[in-house]
Amino acid sequence: MTRTELINQIKSKESLLCVGLDTDINRIPSFLLKEKDPIFEFNKRIIDATLEHAVAYKPNLAFYEASGSKGWESLQKTIEYIPTEVFTIADAKRGDIGNTSSLYARAFFDQLNFDSITVAPYMGIDSVKPFLEFDGKWVILLGLTSNGGSSDFQTLEVNNSGELLFERVLKRSQDWGHTENMMYVIGATKAEQLEEIRKIVPDHFLLVPGVGAQGGDLEAVCKFGLNQDFGLLINSSRGIIYASDDHDFDKQAGKVASNLSAEMKRYIDEYI
Amino acid sequence: MTRTELINQIKSKESLLCVGLDTDINRIPSFLLKEKDPIFEFNKRIIDATLEHAVAYKPNLAFYEASGSKGWESLQKTIEYIPTEVFTIADAKRGDIGNTSSLYARAFFDQLNFDSITVAPYMGIDSVKPFLEFDGKWVILLGLTSNGGSSDFQTLEVNNSGELLFERVLKRSQDWGHTENMMYVIGATKAEQLEEIRKIVPDHFLLVPGVGAQGGDLEAVCKFGLNQDFGLLINSSRGIIYASDDHDFDKQAGKVASNLSAEMKRYIDEYI
Repeated sequence: MTRTELINQIKSKESLLCVGLDTDINRIPSFLLKEKDPIFEFNKRIIDATLEHAVAYKPNLAFYEASGSKGWESLQKTIEYIPTEVFTIADAKRGDIGNTSSLYARAFFDQLNFDSITVAPYMGIDSVKPFLEFDGKWVILLGLTSNGGSSDFQTLEVNNSGELLFERVLKRSQDWGHTENMMYVIGATKAEQLEEIRKIVPDHFLLVPGVGAQGGDLEAVCKFGLNQDFGLLINSSRGIIYASDDHDFDKQAGKVASNLSAEMKRYIDEYI
Repeated sequence: MTRTELINQIKSKESLLCVGLDTDINRIPSFLLKEKDPIFEFNKRIIDATLEHAVAYKPNLAFYEASGSKGWESLQKTIEYIPTEVFTIADAKRGDIGNTSSLYARAFFDQLNFDSITVAPYMGIDSVKPFLEFDGKWVILLGLTSNGGSSDFQTLEVNNSGELLFERVLKRSQDWGHTENMMYVIGATKAEQLEEIRKIVPDHFLLVPGVGAQGGDLEAVCKFGLNQDFGLLINSSRGIIYASDDHDFDKQAGKVASNLSAEMKRYIDEYI
């Protein structure tokens, strides 16, 4: 998917919402377990119920690998089910030496036809570049993550430069890709840092995880993160997909998605 | 597998050899393509031919994911085929927020029964800890990798401390695990750095990739890397498994493995 297509999708839905498909066989409504492929059946209903409000879907690979080859099949069916005008993210956090990254790229871009994949930066340029060689496909590079351990290494100052490691990642990687094939993961718990981050990557799209059903600091994320092309995909996983474990779980998920996207629309109107 | 069991395996085979199962459907001998599961058939014959000399096998996950759910089945059959006294490494370079890393741990340790998994450190403590909660299972954390891009971030000095990022990773992570459940990936192209690295992690096992069929700087790796408990697993992938694409590819692979392990034995005798 091109950047223009993504922007048009955001414009038409007036939403920045990415729905995280962290589908856990142990957490889905029990009545689905009698289905042939409960994981896919759950995803299908979630997608149907949220499609009006979601501009992106992000299956987290761990949840599918946990079911082995069956999980891989559920993933494949899920990605095929998502309409092509919606942006898809393989949340895989891959990254390896060049020939290995090339294989991952083929697996996720060619075989599964994802629009993008999350990639870890630790191994540097040749672990990222192979993912950038596919037209219309995107790397979403880990910048500043939202978990506690993000302060172990990401916020260390590097080479006495005043720059933190994640800032160096944002700068250095701009030589590898551009705003049409690269985004960054920026954790929502650091909304106050988004103002500084926008100085380094003013034009790139940012994928912001960690915004829960309650909205959290959604307003701060929008205020400091939005740019003229929107520039934000804001993810919610558990808050949406596990909104209810009853028979109407999909309807409830749709309701949460609708509320989140309505809130996003307000901030878009206010801050762009 | 416990550390003692691993050491005993090394002692009995007088070898440090890890065989990397980077099995590419496009590179295996064409006569295998008529088999029902060519990838597994290839691996089976490679394992049979190298078992005498190998103390570990390391399937690289990208090569299996490239074939989707079928690849996952080949991986499962491969890991089941490897005798339990040999150490197994899922070269997956995973790492995500806590609940996601827990799922990856279940996938690779419980379901596939690997002894260890390679993990990327960028996301810090809570991305690594869930892998350390399994008895007899190991994290092999990326330290200094052997690819060109390793200098992009891994060798930056952090917090004006004189320490490089990968050295900080080695130090910091020693609070998370210990010598019985943690190893480090240290690229063989940096053999001269092994002396310094051994000062930081004197007792840990190191997984050293990047030693090719030619032996490369195998001697330097052994000289600076061996410790009283051996402390090294040295990987060769393509140099062994693609030694020939003829009908006797397995025999040729066995020959290369035998030569490498004989060379290792010499260095063990010399440097321990």
